Amino acid sequence: MSVSKGLENVIIKATRLTYIDGERGILRYGGYDIEDLVNNSSFEEVAYLMLYGKLPNSLELRKVKERIQDFEIPENVIHILEELPKDADAIAMMETAFSSLSSFYNAYWIGPRERALEVIGKAATIVANIYRIKEGMPTRIPEPSESYAKSFLKAIFSDVSDMEIKAMNASLILYADHEVPASTTADLIVASTLSDMYSCVAAALSALKGPLHGGAAEEAFKQFVEIGDPSNVEAWFNKVIAEKKRLMGFGHRVYKTYDPRSRIFKKLAKELKSERGGKYLEIAEKLEEVGTRHFAEKKIFPNTDFYSGIVFYSIGFPIYMFTPLFALSRTLGWLAHAIEYVEDDYGMIRPRALYVGSEKRSF
Amino acid sequence: MSVSKGLENVIIKATRLTYIDGERGILRYGGYDIEDLVNNSSFEEVAYLMLYGKLPNSLELRKVKERIQDFEIPENVIHILEELPKDADAIAMMETAFSSLSSFYNAYWIGPRERALEVIGKAATIVANIYRIKEGMPTRIPEPSESYAKSFLKAIFSDVSDMEIKAMNASLILYADHEVPASTTADLIVASTLSDMYSCVAAALSALKGPLHGGAAEEAFKQFVEIGDPSNVEAWFNKVIAEKKRLMGFGHRVYKTYDPRSRIFKKLAKELKSERGGKYLEIAEKLEEVGTRHFAEKKIFPNTDFYSGIVFYSIGFPIYMFTPLFALSRTLGWLAHAIEYVEDDYGMIRPRALYVGSEKRSF
Repeated sequence: MSVSKGLENVIIKATRLTYIDGERGILRYGGYDIEDLVNNSSFEEVAYLMLYGKLPNSLELRKVKERIQDFEIPENVIHILEELPKDADAIAMMETAFSSLSSFYNAYWIGPRERALEVIGKAATIVANIYRIKEGMPTRIPEPSESYAKSFLKAIFSDVSDMEIKAMNASLILYADHEVPASTTADLIVASTLSDMYSCVAAALSALKGPLHGGAAEEAFKQFVEIGDPSNVEAWFNKVIAEKKRLMGFGHRVYKTYDPRSRIFKKLAKELKSERGGKYLEIAEKLEEVGTRHFAEKKIFPNTDFYSGIVFYSIGFPIYMFTPLFALSRTLGWLAHAIEYVEDDYGMIRPRALYVGSEKRSF
Repeated sequence: MSVSKGLENVIIKATRLTYIDGERGILRYGGYDIEDLVNNSSFEEVAYLMLYGKLPNSLELRKVKERIQDFEIPENVIHILEELPKDADAIAMMETAFSSLSSFYNAYWIGPRERALEVIGKAATIVANIYRIKEGMPTRIPEPSESYAKSFLKAIFSDVSDMEIKAMNASLILYADHEVPASTTADLIVASTLSDMYSCVAAALSALKGPLHGGAAEEAFKQFVEIGDPSNVEAWFNKVIAEKKRLMGFGHRVYKTYDPRSRIFKKLAKELKSERGGKYLEIAEKLEEVGTRHFAEKKIFPNTDFYSGIVFYSIGFPIYMFTPLFALSRTLGWLAHAIEYVEDDYGMIRPRALYVGSEKRSF
């Protein structure tokens, strides 16, 4: 009778979604290498792959696009977001919006793939309007277009380039799933009671809100801001090491080599070549060089959150949007895992606790 | 490498809170038998016991009462509840309210016991106003009084008897904790990322919303309504058995004898002797008799949800409030377990999934 701390090494389910080989730096969705998907497919195609187990043909893709671009949400949910403090944590706002959507829509486990696509559509509206409300802009429902990435960006920014859409599409794919971290585990527990999909996502967001889980890309980027100039990198790094502070954006529980997603985010950051992000990219590359040299023997490399912030920032997003952007993408993984859990019939989750308290006492 | 289905027999943590012996029908909080606590203590004393590990002295009790009766919540949260459809699921409404509270209050893990008492205070305001909004009544903040149970009931009903307060206090104690069912597990995962307490409760509610988890007392009571008259019990029961339908309110995964809470709820239902609930009590007693006779060899008895609905209904609550009343009480258990998890430093929850999907494919 021993406690499984953090449920480490406990296998909560089987999955056909995501394969990770941390030793060799491989990440695959449905058997396809992440690079292959980023280079050749849209987020809609990946959504289809995760939900249906194969890539869509052109008719299937058309249908997916139609459903995933149903961006309508009740006006009440916009009002609810407006009732929250302007400086509220963006993930807490998203959590509230998803909780409230569960009172308006019936997203249970009949026709779950169609339901999931609808939830992902509404997620774009929520995330876009969290930005708009925080920035004091009028709210706006995204308009359907050739792609989910484009519709989402156009609901936020007046001017959107093809390269920005490409980068947004890639980010949506890159963060879509990563097996069962804490947020996905919370999502599974909620699914295991046959609660609705909005509640599954809301619970995942509750977990993601925790400083140990979400926010890594924001923290990594804040370091670049703190460093301020490429010439300060070495001194800043030495100070962090000397003071034994935590270096954000380096190392991963699973990857013992370069995280394949990190390489792609770096390439995107370079391609975006934005005036806004350029300086931070220089700082990040320098920090990567210094850091990798220092950690060479420990096999610690920049993780996926190291360069993703520069991509988001270069597109035009403020730092507080990095985690909501992650969550927008991960909504797909949360729902795909939830559907798999329910359909594979693992039953309601009910672990045990080991009593170590007081013997019988009397009042 | 095998899947731990439903995390059955996985021990997620140690606990000093609740001891259950299902074979002998024993339930204890902090070493005290549940009967002992119901007979001798207030919900506030039990809250202190669960959070601090001992019963309070009179000074400590005074302080607890003061803090747990801080019923104020931001007006925005009331507005948010009002934006939801009147016929929304009451637990979904509660989930939205708790999510939104996480944007207004800072309920993290410094001074967690004081924070938890505040959360429990605000829970009473939320649950009372879910009732008031659904019934089209003006919203109302509970007023501090001698007891939490009294303040809560008086925020809902114009006329409240001592016996009703006694029954409400007992219910709050009876449902306060029961180790780590799905809702508490969701709560622990969120706590494990060091997210805030409102988000912990919101995630627990997301799980409770699922038809496999919450709602048992409501379902049991609906049977009594369907039966309609004590003289119909036998025929109704035989039909259920013949049609192999599920009988609600009987049997429990853990208890192989009479659930100690069920005995107390039955006694309370009898003591309340309400005109409103009287007929249903008769039906329930008759159904218990018929059911226990039928299941004698299988050791299946009425569970805690069998009589609790009659208690709630006799106090004056409509059926849709049964699960929120459960959740109001369980908020204590959720928070006590969350604090224990964080303080005992189990770390972030991160189980594994076993990949059984496609081999490598190319686009």
